[in-house]
Amino acid sequence: MEYQHGGDIYTNNVIMDYSANLSPLGLPRGVKEAVYKAADQCACYPDSRSMKLRKELSGFHGIPPEYLICGNGAADLIFQIVQALKPKNALLIAPSFLEYEQALKASSCNVAYFDLKKENGFQLREKELKNWLEKSGLDFQMLFLCNPNNPTGFAVNKEGMAEILEYCRDHGIFCVVDECFNEFLQEPEQYSVLDLIGRGGYENVFLLKAFTKLYAMAGLRLGYGICSQKEVLDQMNLIRQPWSVSSIAQAAGEAALKERSYVEKTRQLISCEREYLKSALSDLGFQVFDSMANYIFFKDLRPKALIREKLLYKQLLDRKVLIRSCFNYRGLDHTYYRICVKQRKENEAFLSILKSIVTEGK
Amino acid sequence: MEYQHGGDIYTNNVIMDYSANLSPLGLPRGVKEAVYKAADQCACYPDSRSMKLRKELSGFHGIPPEYLICGNGAADLIFQIVQALKPKNALLIAPSFLEYEQALKASSCNVAYFDLKKENGFQLREKELKNWLEKSGLDFQMLFLCNPNNPTGFAVNKEGMAEILEYCRDHGIFCVVDECFNEFLQEPEQYSVLDLIGRGGYENVFLLKAFTKLYAMAGLRLGYGICSQKEVLDQMNLIRQPWSVSSIAQAAGEAALKERSYVEKTRQLISCEREYLKSALSDLGFQVFDSMANYIFFKDLRPKALIREKLLYKQLLDRKVLIRSCFNYRGLDHTYYRICVKQRKENEAFLSILKSIVTEGK
Repeated sequence: MEYQHGGDIYTNNVIMDYSANLSPLGLPRGVKEAVYKAADQCACYPDSRSMKLRKELSGFHGIPPEYLICGNGAADLIFQIVQALKPKNALLIAPSFLEYEQALKASSCNVAYFDLKKENGFQLREKELKNWLEKSGLDFQMLFLCNPNNPTGFAVNKEGMAEILEYCRDHGIFCVVDECFNEFLQEPEQYSVLDLIGRGGYENVFLLKAFTKLYAMAGLRLGYGICSQKEVLDQMNLIRQPWSVSSIAQAAGEAALKERSYVEKTRQLISCEREYLKSALSDLGFQVFDSMANYIFFKDLRPKALIREKLLYKQLLDRKVLIRSCFNYRGLDHTYYRICVKQRKENEAFLSILKSIVTEGK
Repeated sequence: MEYQHGGDIYTNNVIMDYSANLSPLGLPRGVKEAVYKAADQCACYPDSRSMKLRKELSGFHGIPPEYLICGNGAADLIFQIVQALKPKNALLIAPSFLEYEQALKASSCNVAYFDLKKENGFQLREKELKNWLEKSGLDFQMLFLCNPNNPTGFAVNKEGMAEILEYCRDHGIFCVVDECFNEFLQEPEQYSVLDLIGRGGYENVFLLKAFTKLYAMAGLRLGYGICSQKEVLDQMNLIRQPWSVSSIAQAAGEAALKERSYVEKTRQLISCEREYLKSALSDLGFQVFDSMANYIFFKDLRPKALIREKLLYKQLLDRKVLIRSCFNYRGLDHTYYRICVKQRKENEAFLSILKSIVTEGK
C-alpha cells in the first residue's frame, strides 16, 4: 500500500516534516500527563460509549451528550458515517481530503465532483455550488464539505454554510461537514456550523471534529462527531466495533479540553507565522493561495517544476525536508504543494533551504 | 446503546471485575515503559502500515511481513475482513463471540448457525460440522471459528482445524480463525493453525490474533491478522482508514513481543488457577464446562436461577462483583455465565462471595 497522505516519516529519511498539519506547539503538558496516568489503567477495556469524554464535550460545546459520537480519529468516523448511511451517489468538492472518496468507494458509492476553479483561488462559492446542484439534475444522498478545506485552506463563513446546508436539507442530501481545522482559524465561531446544529433544524448534518490537529495528538487517534439525528448515531454505533476509542485517547481528550490557553497560543502563533510564510513564499516566486488555516497551499511556477528530477518535493526530500505533494488530488498536479505552519525558528530554517533550492535553479 | 460484552466497569459500581478475560498479571512493565516513551512521540501520525511492528511479528512467528495486517484491536479486523470480502451468506458457531454477527449484519450478510450441543459440553466436533455443512446444501462464503471458543473455552486441536479448513477450501468457504485466546492454552501450538498458513495451501484462512488479552492491554487496542492471500489484505487496506493503529499501540506491541517470561508465567498461573476455580465452582453446585482457556463457562443449576431477583449476575453485582452473563448468546439463557481466571488471592475472595450467595439461598 502506497502512502497517500502527509506525515510519512517512516519511509522517508526526514529531519524536518512540513507535511502534517498539526499544532506546532506539540502535545500539551496536561495531555501528556493524562496519557501517563491512563497507561496505568489500560489493562481494562475502554468505555465503549466514551461516556465521560462525551459529557465533557457536551459541556464544552453546549450541546446534549446524545448528539456526540467518538471515534478512532476523525478518519474512523468518515468511514462509519458512509457505512451507516450507505449513500448511492455522493458529491465531493475537488480538491479535498482524500479519505472521503476512499470511504465512499469502500461502500461502493458513486462519486461525482464539484471542481474548485484555480481562477477563483480554489475557493468554494456557495451560490455556484447551489446553482451547479440545481442544474446538474443529479440525485445525491451525501455531500462532504471540508471547512476550512484541506489542502486549499479556504473557509466558507457560517452564513454561506447555512445556505448550502439548507439547500441540501430541502433536497434530501445529508451533509458531512469536516471542521477538523476550524479551531486554527482566526475567528473559529464565524465559520463553524456547530450552533446551527445546536439550535435545531439541521438533522441532515454530521459535524466532524478532531483532537488530532489542534492538540498535536495524531499518534493517539481521537475524533468526534456531532449530529442531532438520533437514528444516524444509532446506526453508526451499530456498525462499529465496540471499543474503537482507546482508553488512553479518551483520557487525553478529557485533558485536552482544559487546554484553553494552549489553544489560544496556537491560534495566535498560526495567524502570525502563516502570514510570514505566505509572504516569504510569494517573494520566492511561488503562487500562494489564500489559506486561512494552519497550512499553506501553493503552486511551484518555476519553468522546470514538472520535470521529475526538479520536483520541489524531491529537491526538498534530498535535503531531508518532507512537504505534501498534492499531485494525487483531483485537478492538481506535481506543481501543487501544501506545507504546515510551524514556529518561527523552524520556519526560518525551512525557508532558508527553500531559498537555496530556488536560487540554485536560477 | 446497551453494553453487550463483559468489562462494563463504567456503568456498574464494581470492585471486582470477573467479566473481562485478560491476563491477571496486568500490563507488563516493559510495555508500560514503551507507552510512556511513545507518549513523547505521539504528536506525529502513526505509521499507517505498522511496518516496524509487522517486521517484529514476522520474526516472532516466522512468517513473511506481507502476511500481516494490524488493527485497532482484533474487533477492528473482524469488521474489516467482512467488509473486504462482503460474503452473502456466512456460518457462525453458536454460541460464540458476538462481534462476528454484528460485523456480518453491518455488511448485510445472511447469517446461519451451527449450534453447539449442551450434551456435548458445547464442544465443537469437526466431523459433525463437516457433515452438517455437507447435508445443509447451503452455499456459504465465510465461516468464523473461535479457537478456543469464547465463551465456552473449548479448543479444537490443529488436526481437527485442518480438517475443517480443508473442507472449506474445497468448498469455496473463507475461514476466519480467531485465536485471540490461543496463548492461554497449556500447549498453544497444538491448537494453532499458524504453521498451516505458513506452510502454504491455506489461502482461504484469515488468522486473527490479539495483544489485548495476553498482555492485559485492552485499553490500548491492538490486534493483528495473518493471511497468505495477498488480495485479501490488499482489499482490507483499501477499505480501512489509514491510521487505524495508534503509535502508542504499535510501540506497546513491539515491546510486548519481548515479554516471553511474562507469557510463560501467565500461562502457568492460568492453568493452575483455572483448575482451582473449576473445582471450587463444581463443589458449589454449578455445572462447569471444560474450558481450556483463561475463562470458565458454567451454568447455575439452582432451582431459582432464572428468577429475576435471584439471578447470580444480580446477586453478585449487589456485592459489586461483575461477571459475564451469557444470556445474549444464541442458545444460552440467564443461567449461563463466564468468569475470567485471576490470581489466587482474588479468586479466593471471589469464591468466598459466591459461596455466601449460594449458602444464603439454601
